[in-house]
Amino acid sequence: MNYKIDNLQYCKWSREVFQINHDAGLDAVHVTVVYHEDYDEFLRRVSEWSDHFKQNSDLILLGKNYKDIDKAKSENKTAIFFGFQNCSPIEDDIGLIEKVHEHGCRFMQLTYNNQSLLATGCYEKNDSGVTNFGKEAIKEMNRVGIVIDMSHSGEKSTFDAIELSEKPIAITHANPSFWHKALRNKSTDLLKTLADSKGMLGLSLYAHHLKDSTNCKLESFCEMAAKTAEIMGVKNIGVGSDLCLNQPDNVVEWMRNGTWTKTKNFGEGSKSKPGFPKQPDWFIDARGFKNLEKGLKKVGFNDEDVNGILGNNWYNFYKGIN
Amino acid sequence: MNYKIDNLQYCKWSREVFQINHDAGLDAVHVTVVYHEDYDEFLRRVSEWSDHFKQNSDLILLGKNYKDIDKAKSENKTAIFFGFQNCSPIEDDIGLIEKVHEHGCRFMQLTYNNQSLLATGCYEKNDSGVTNFGKEAIKEMNRVGIVIDMSHSGEKSTFDAIELSEKPIAITHANPSFWHKALRNKSTDLLKTLADSKGMLGLSLYAHHLKDSTNCKLESFCEMAAKTAEIMGVKNIGVGSDLCLNQPDNVVEWMRNGTWTKTKNFGEGSKSKPGFPKQPDWFIDARGFKNLEKGLKKVGFNDEDVNGILGNNWYNFYKGIN
Repeated sequence: MNYKIDNLQYCKWSREVFQINHDAGLDAVHVTVVYHEDYDEFLRRVSEWSDHFKQNSDLILLGKNYKDIDKAKSENKTAIFFGFQNCSPIEDDIGLIEKVHEHGCRFMQLTYNNQSLLATGCYEKNDSGVTNFGKEAIKEMNRVGIVIDMSHSGEKSTFDAIELSEKPIAITHANPSFWHKALRNKSTDLLKTLADSKGMLGLSLYAHHLKDSTNCKLESFCEMAAKTAEIMGVKNIGVGSDLCLNQPDNVVEWMRNGTWTKTKNFGEGSKSKPGFPKQPDWFIDARGFKNLEKGLKKVGFNDEDVNGILGNNWYNFYKGIN
Repeated sequence: MNYKIDNLQYCKWSREVFQINHDAGLDAVHVTVVYHEDYDEFLRRVSEWSDHFKQNSDLILLGKNYKDIDKAKSENKTAIFFGFQNCSPIEDDIGLIEKVHEHGCRFMQLTYNNQSLLATGCYEKNDSGVTNFGKEAIKEMNRVGIVIDMSHSGEKSTFDAIELSEKPIAITHANPSFWHKALRNKSTDLLKTLADSKGMLGLSLYAHHLKDSTNCKLESFCEMAAKTAEIMGVKNIGVGSDLCLNQPDNVVEWMRNGTWTKTKNFGEGSKSKPGFPKQPDWFIDARGFKNLEKGLKKVGFNDEDVNGILGNNWYNFYKGIN
């Protein structure tokens, strides 16, 4: 059995988007349900998702563990797994980790770009690693079954998280920095350590993480995947597209600025390019998985490896965490 | 005119405590109104204080700037200035800084013992300094008129705060580490830099900050004050007693553990001594200011310097920040 999994999307959710993911053959998607929301706001997002599940029950179902991926596959649907890009829903309360898990959370970043109460984000000047509260939170996330996601974290914090976590962690959406230097991309040393601990890297299709941005070539992306497989082993790589379909530009502004600054912060963008970047033409949306399949084969991956990267590796990772 | 000011107390507030402070001749007290409370919980504390002011209007009034210290003095009352030991009431929202100021907040620690969103606490292993959000918060605190208090912060974070703040900062309650090594006490280098920036140190009378703890001798404390005056200049020193009169031991447990850990943390205490430590017999409560006065004179301070340490220096600091 082969699975197709996109392990990170933050689209403006609608029937249209669920249909696109269905047409792309996705069996599972890890969706971002919150960025900077607190616990009460998270509950509102859960309630909105509850409406999505009711109104699109022919296309999606809530995923709680790997078995729901099989269920979705057999019913020709997509399993939706909830995740957080920031730890703000647990506020300063370790007791809320169990609560968010009860409401479906299965992935949580310890930080977005800035310092959090748990660890340091990749946009801070100094990284002090996982904090006192962070150490407690990792134990609790391990206990209840929430994957630690370090996509937006600083390097030392990520090394710490790998060491502290008793379960493999994930970098759900980022690329290697050897290919494209960006604060969000990851060093070869870090990727090796991640793979040694059976952690997963979801390769990102977001233009700011790509060499040559929107103009990135499919071939270049797939060559990067091949080199990353040499570094990490082909079983530790998947896709986390970071697709933000139909989101208006004020959303990326909010993602970057939250409520923490009065000075406008452009994050990965710039004053002249403040909005969402355009996707490369071979990955406008998840239907681009087909192009990835061709491209990966072309650079020499065999069928098993291609199927692994496009979903089976994530499926096996989900199996290991439940 | 001479003032008596205790620039940090966190007592279980009651008419009895206000009466003791009155009997001690205190013209002003900086009181801790929150530790780990969020914004809504802070508003509840404000409402409780509103009751205190109504029920004890013959003893206390709300202090908003230095003129209220004069008002309190002329009316034979104590001016109460609100402060936070953690930045949790501003949550992740820079807009709340102006709001808490409107509700009377005049001092805010950037951190309690742990990492906050603004800076690193003195109980963390690594200190990455003031964060991106912290830099914005310092600008806003400067603008609205909230003093940056680094009593419970790490050393690098404190150096950063001194450098970043356009107004002098305070360490409202701590002692020099040359006298008693404790995570909460401060290095000579830091105290020099604090004084160079016209910042204030409030000497603490809390047993865990004292040499020989509860058995600390008045003479030893006053000799420490003399040596600190040599380092910092006598104008930069005051008192921040850290008195926690009538607080039950479950309060110190909450101060240390908040809601961030499932493992019990004993902070400055230990498993065998988990509660509030006993005060030294010469400073059971604020009436101990009289003993301080005698002790400081005995180690060679002249009247002007003693009056400075017991209140005039804090009064002048308040004058400079409004």
